[in-house]
Amino acid sequence: MKKVGVAILGLGVVGGGAYSILSSHRDFYMKAHGLDITVEAVLELKRERALSLGIEERKIASSIEEICSNPEVDIVIESMGGVEPARSFSLAVMSAGKSVVTSNKELYCKYGYELEKAAKHNHVGLFYEATCAGGVPVVRALLDNLEGNRITSFIGIINGTTNYILTKMTNEGKSYKEVLAEAQRLGYAEADPETDVEGYDAAYKLSILSSLCFHTKIPFADIHREGITKISSADILCGKRLGYVIKLLAIGKDGEKGIEVRVHPAFIRTAHPLASVGDSYNAVYITGDSVEDVMLYGRGAGALPTGSAIVGDVIYCATHPQHRYSPFENTENASPATKFVTNFESAYYLRLVAEDRAGELSKITAILGKYGISVAQVIQGPAAGGAQAGKADLVVITHVTREENVNKAVSAINRDLQTEVASVIRVVE
Amino acid sequence: MKKVGVAILGLGVVGGGAYSILSSHRDFYMKAHGLDITVEAVLELKRERALSLGIEERKIASSIEEICSNPEVDIVIESMGGVEPARSFSLAVMSAGKSVVTSNKELYCKYGYELEKAAKHNHVGLFYEATCAGGVPVVRALLDNLEGNRITSFIGIINGTTNYILTKMTNEGKSYKEVLAEAQRLGYAEADPETDVEGYDAAYKLSILSSLCFHTKIPFADIHREGITKISSADILCGKRLGYVIKLLAIGKDGEKGIEVRVHPAFIRTAHPLASVGDSYNAVYITGDSVEDVMLYGRGAGALPTGSAIVGDVIYCATHPQHRYSPFENTENASPATKFVTNFESAYYLRLVAEDRAGELSKITAILGKYGISVAQVIQGPAAGGAQAGKADLVVITHVTREENVNKAVSAINRDLQTEVASVIRVVE
Repeated sequence: MKKVGVAILGLGVVGGGAYSILSSHRDFYMKAHGLDITVEAVLELKRERALSLGIEERKIASSIEEICSNPEVDIVIESMGGVEPARSFSLAVMSAGKSVVTSNKELYCKYGYELEKAAKHNHVGLFYEATCAGGVPVVRALLDNLEGNRITSFIGIINGTTNYILTKMTNEGKSYKEVLAEAQRLGYAEADPETDVEGYDAAYKLSILSSLCFHTKIPFADIHREGITKISSADILCGKRLGYVIKLLAIGKDGEKGIEVRVHPAFIRTAHPLASVGDSYNAVYITGDSVEDVMLYGRGAGALPTGSAIVGDVIYCATHPQHRYSPFENTENASPATKFVTNFESAYYLRLVAEDRAGELSKITAILGKYGISVAQVIQGPAAGGAQAGKADLVVITHVTREENVNKAVSAINRDLQTEVASVIRVVE
Repeated sequence: MKKVGVAILGLGVVGGGAYSILSSHRDFYMKAHGLDITVEAVLELKRERALSLGIEERKIASSIEEICSNPEVDIVIESMGGVEPARSFSLAVMSAGKSVVTSNKELYCKYGYELEKAAKHNHVGLFYEATCAGGVPVVRALLDNLEGNRITSFIGIINGTTNYILTKMTNEGKSYKEVLAEAQRLGYAEADPETDVEGYDAAYKLSILSSLCFHTKIPFADIHREGITKISSADILCGKRLGYVIKLLAIGKDGEKGIEVRVHPAFIRTAHPLASVGDSYNAVYITGDSVEDVMLYGRGAGALPTGSAIVGDVIYCATHPQHRYSPFENTENASPATKFVTNFESAYYLRLVAEDRAGELSKITAILGKYGISVAQVIQGPAAGGAQAGKADLVVITHVTREENVNKAVSAINRDLQTEVASVIRVVE
């Protein structure tokens, strides 16, 4: 029976989940995989957290050096989150000849190039399935299943917190603030929700996943990022009437003009397979030139689903002693050869609040026309939702057009007409 | 640049797809993976098929021995289908030190134990992602992502032909025979459709996938199998009214009483993520004790999607020189320790055609009650659909009960009442 010693750095939700899976499945892994996997050490500032999980006192390390010098430890699970000290600790254990399994998306996104280099240098493994989309097996699918494809499009719902908030807003008609407060009470959102609601978390993951999709480094800094804080119930309601549902999407595209990477809220058709991905579920919808469309769906967060991804990597590491490293040149910045498209093309949803409806519509469409924007659908009147007393809402869905044209048209409408553009939301057809 | 020589046995839909992907992506694989993959030989009885794909005459082998002795060939793609000569050819090339990538579900299902043994003996790789669900990355997900889970339930739509037929029947109200004829005309069904419509193909795949799920050999012979040939438009219509859609499901369960494996048509709720998997798409819905629910969805068949799975395995094989073999003891028969549950529990849909409606319902429910079957839902009258003139349809959805009780109740109704049980279909809640 092969013995595998594991250390866990950080016993928060994810590290605690990995611990509880490993300890409750020890017999199962012996039988199913011929591996005797034991947690030999943990590093956790809050000792009582370790003790409450039933971890023996002698296994609670008081420094990273103890983990590094522990000969029983083969694989280190890094589930601390944040850049430091996770980064130095990961480098230290790799120098000590231990493989790393990480769930730390911010670290792998920002310093993956450095970690990959260190892993290669030290001939140890580095695994990061748990950095993206919890239990959804997307990292390995891109690495080892879809690698024969030119991936042309990646659309992901890869942040559970925002998906929970938007689903609640959609189903219950509540405001962003109300639902956020509720999510915070229930532990679905952090006290400081910025990382999630402003799209940072989704952008870290998109950086990791789009690099795998497009076989080249896509740095965080090159990702266009917008959060969900400005989404109103009125927009959700108007979208619904037009057959759309709103999601925070992480989009990667590779086309003739270059690579396009963006995180922002967007309307998608209710018939799209991603539209029914609700609550804290995550899903990725990937289009490749051979495989056509593939969707992977599952729990995007949580102790056990993310723990499942970690433990999957631990078993993979233990059963595949010959390690592979980043399949592309994993550098700090993008390759100079990579062209990024920033003037996106998209369909748009515009909600306009008109002072005086009569005559305004033709003025609005005239301005849109001036900037080459053609209108696919219009709804007028109070039924469009959310209008203030004495004002009228008007919702326009455009055909696919350039973002810069939309921005110019919106400025012109706000400047020249008795109409205010209340919202501009992209529409993914 | 690492050179990788490939041979393809059989240039049918799948082999031809793999060939066209490999030949059109040669430069891409050099750039993305540092691999120069070339097709060095093919074995295809119909030489004109090879020539029409643009394969040079000198690469068309005239015997398997030529492939075995070709030093340029590292990896052999077996896409012939059927047991012989695919089996002998696979064993021969492995003896000659070549790795095998197969899309042959029947062969891997029936002789996987023998192929795994030969691969191990010859220190070559054996890959079979393409045997199941076309482009859906389910084999590797079970092997390398979800292996830390006790999988409790697997539900798959893993046969594209039957899903196409049932989707058409559902959407267009046509009969099985009509849609089958149409599918045959369009090439979605074989001239002899038995392998698909009687559930053999799905059962081969379920044997492979449930063995991976449950870490033990699940032979084809232990799978309960029923096809879709008896499904009527009347049943589809009645199911629709009750909020169900019919699918050919491949189900694997592992519980306290043992393992349950079955392929049969079943109603699932329209809200279930599998319900919207239409046409020739495939999907698997997997529940593990840590990961909770995961669904993988994509094209279940076709030259390029299945070719994508094959090429994925070729690249994996070329970049992972240390091979792993079946993670469980892959034997011809199930382990004596494996207990199979054959007296399933399920909810049931019964469609009854009553000679005289008045009074029959209470007699029917009395018989159901006698066998411990409780009724969850009933619809009566011509609206239930499909009734003959002068007769009345009655549809009963039961609560979960044992299959043997349902069989007894159905016999009793047919024997004792003026009512005929026209259909019995399982309902997956």
